Amino acid sequence: MQIFLDRHNLDGFLFVGDSICDADMYYLTHFLAGDRFALLAQEKTTLLVSSMETGRARKESIADECVSTSQYRIMDKMKRSETPEEAYFQVLAEFLQSHGIRRLGVPFRFPAGFYQYLTSDFDVKILESPASRCREIKRQEELDAIVCTQRSCERAMRQAVLLIGHSEPRGEMLYREGQPLTSENVRGAIDVSLLEDGCEAMDTIVAGGLAGADPHARGTGPLAANSPIVIDIFPRSKSSRYFADMTRTVLKGEAAPEVKEIYEAVALAQSEGLEAIRAGVFGKEVHSRVSQVFLDQGYPDREGCGFTHSTGHGVGLDVHEKPSIGEVGGALEVNHVVTVEPGLYYPKIGGVRLEDLVVVKENGSENLTHFERKLVL
Amino acid sequence: MQIFLDRHNLDGFLFVGDSICDADMYYLTHFLAGDRFALLAQEKTTLLVSSMETGRARKESIADECVSTSQYRIMDKMKRSETPEEAYFQVLAEFLQSHGIRRLGVPFRFPAGFYQYLTSDFDVKILESPASRCREIKRQEELDAIVCTQRSCERAMRQAVLLIGHSEPRGEMLYREGQPLTSENVRGAIDVSLLEDGCEAMDTIVAGGLAGADPHARGTGPLAANSPIVIDIFPRSKSSRYFADMTRTVLKGEAAPEVKEIYEAVALAQSEGLEAIRAGVFGKEVHSRVSQVFLDQGYPDREGCGFTHSTGHGVGLDVHEKPSIGEVGGALEVNHVVTVEPGLYYPKIGGVRLEDLVVVKENGSENLTHFERKLVL
Repeated sequence: MQIFLDRHNLDGFLFVGDSICDADMYYLTHFLAGDRFALLAQEKTTLLVSSMETGRARKESIADECVSTSQYRIMDKMKRSETPEEAYFQVLAEFLQSHGIRRLGVPFRFPAGFYQYLTSDFDVKILESPASRCREIKRQEELDAIVCTQRSCERAMRQAVLLIGHSEPRGEMLYREGQPLTSENVRGAIDVSLLEDGCEAMDTIVAGGLAGADPHARGTGPLAANSPIVIDIFPRSKSSRYFADMTRTVLKGEAAPEVKEIYEAVALAQSEGLEAIRAGVFGKEVHSRVSQVFLDQGYPDREGCGFTHSTGHGVGLDVHEKPSIGEVGGALEVNHVVTVEPGLYYPKIGGVRLEDLVVVKENGSENLTHFERKLVL
Repeated sequence: MQIFLDRHNLDGFLFVGDSICDADMYYLTHFLAGDRFALLAQEKTTLLVSSMETGRARKESIADECVSTSQYRIMDKMKRSETPEEAYFQVLAEFLQSHGIRRLGVPFRFPAGFYQYLTSDFDVKILESPASRCREIKRQEELDAIVCTQRSCERAMRQAVLLIGHSEPRGEMLYREGQPLTSENVRGAIDVSLLEDGCEAMDTIVAGGLAGADPHARGTGPLAANSPIVIDIFPRSKSSRYFADMTRTVLKGEAAPEVKEIYEAVALAQSEGLEAIRAGVFGKEVHSRVSQVFLDQGYPDREGCGFTHSTGHGVGLDVHEKPSIGEVGGALEVNHVVTVEPGLYYPKIGGVRLEDLVVVKENGSENLTHFERKLVL
């Protein structure tokens, strides 16, 4: 941190937000809070929290010091200010002054309102967060945490695949115990499995039939027989806060030849993408190789169908983070953790996507995903 | 919205963020997305989303129009820009210009980086979000959603209370089936119940014994016998996104006289607080009445112990939102939804808190909480 501050000629770098939404703040503090707090990074890191949170912050955070807003008499200031934001700013200004701050860095996502206030008393620069670069390269304990979440992800995927595998195709729908099997049923089984493992998942995708043609549709209602079902699970561990991410596409019943061909094309593209990954390769090169596989197999890229998204993204405390493996992805480095998730989408057929999670190594990658690729159950 | 824009002499109001973290954006769009998008509020509302999300945005959001960043050739701009943020800003600028924007409002929490970029091409004012004021006063469908989450919250509380009630005090700990009953066990039962109801809870508090003396400690490990256990559940419905919030304090075994007295004091303070709530009363008056009850009963307010927090807060799409019922709370209005949650905390005894959720009415309030207050199980 000191090197970063010296390079930019700063006395400190300030974050204001909550560490549920701002993963940089969690990364730097290990203090999880849904209510706003401030984090000042100097040679030492200091938290400014409400008096309610001081005890917990001192116990749970890795910050060097935790001070309370009551120490800067926030209540008196609240009573004298027009808005709570104005009072909070006054506390913030006194806090910064008492830490010898004149030249201050703030991240791109810093609240504009506080930025405007601060510029009147301090010399403020908006910079890329120093945590953002560190977060890309995972330490061993971060890799362990991601693997742990990935295992939970696989157990949940197994439940989903078993449920669909044991269902019965009748006419156009899948049935279980006489009732149509729905996206909600499968998502429920996934959620219960994740919960048992201490994980949570916001937006699990179980999208069958034509709904699968929209790569971001979550899926609702009865699942179609003889049609690909995209299952994309990206849980977060409630304890470590690290995500995992994987996708499988399965089908119960008879697969049409064109669906089989699409699946094979996606599987080949994924294998080639996985093979391309190693330190020093650019994300955009990997993406371009995957795109070329699709072109070579007769699946050109068109707006709204075909291979409509990028090949992958970093995974860590956010489910989508740097680096990117898309049209503008930069150089991969050792201990980046990224997905490789090509897919093909056609409004009249549905979607097929396969996604693995890998760690970038010097001469290749280590695949963290232990789950077979198999279309027809 | 048009009235707001006219009053501040603006052509539009812009949000940039994700609607998981920014409840204003969800409120105005009903479009739930963890990835960044932009929302331009004019007479009509327009979403600017990635091409991946356009289909879902058109289906799910209540915005009048959804346009894709690919329409502004984001990929070309990415390839030519130094940073993704710079490319995104160029898209944003073209998008705003094509919507006739010169004078623009942004909310206090708008990202400072984009604010700085925008000020070079537009006349930008930082203002309180127009959604924030609307969100305080709940419409009928919002009240229905909150009640629905509250019922789930009560079912989960019932599971917790049953589990503790059926445990066996032996020595200093509670036991169930020969094993110590832990905070984690109780939280697990709460989580399963909430999941079955389609809800999720981040930070459920089950804090027994001395841990309960810190009002924000979550609680871990074996639960103490003969000692108050604070259970604070604030789940969110995964479908409606609305929160509920309630707290009960229970004890299994023998309650010491001082614990009983503290519980009675908190119960009385809560009853008085609930009685004080009606439209037109200031939050700070309610808080001051509750504080007075504690003073009158011999529980003075000291830093770190006693009644260490405010009386309550608004609940809606955020678990803590306006209005405040604390030292600076303004006037309550019809259809505000607020908690009333006095508590007393002593490092050598533990904590007691009771929290109900109410809707403010013309001449009083409607208590949405249907759950008994009972210390000893």
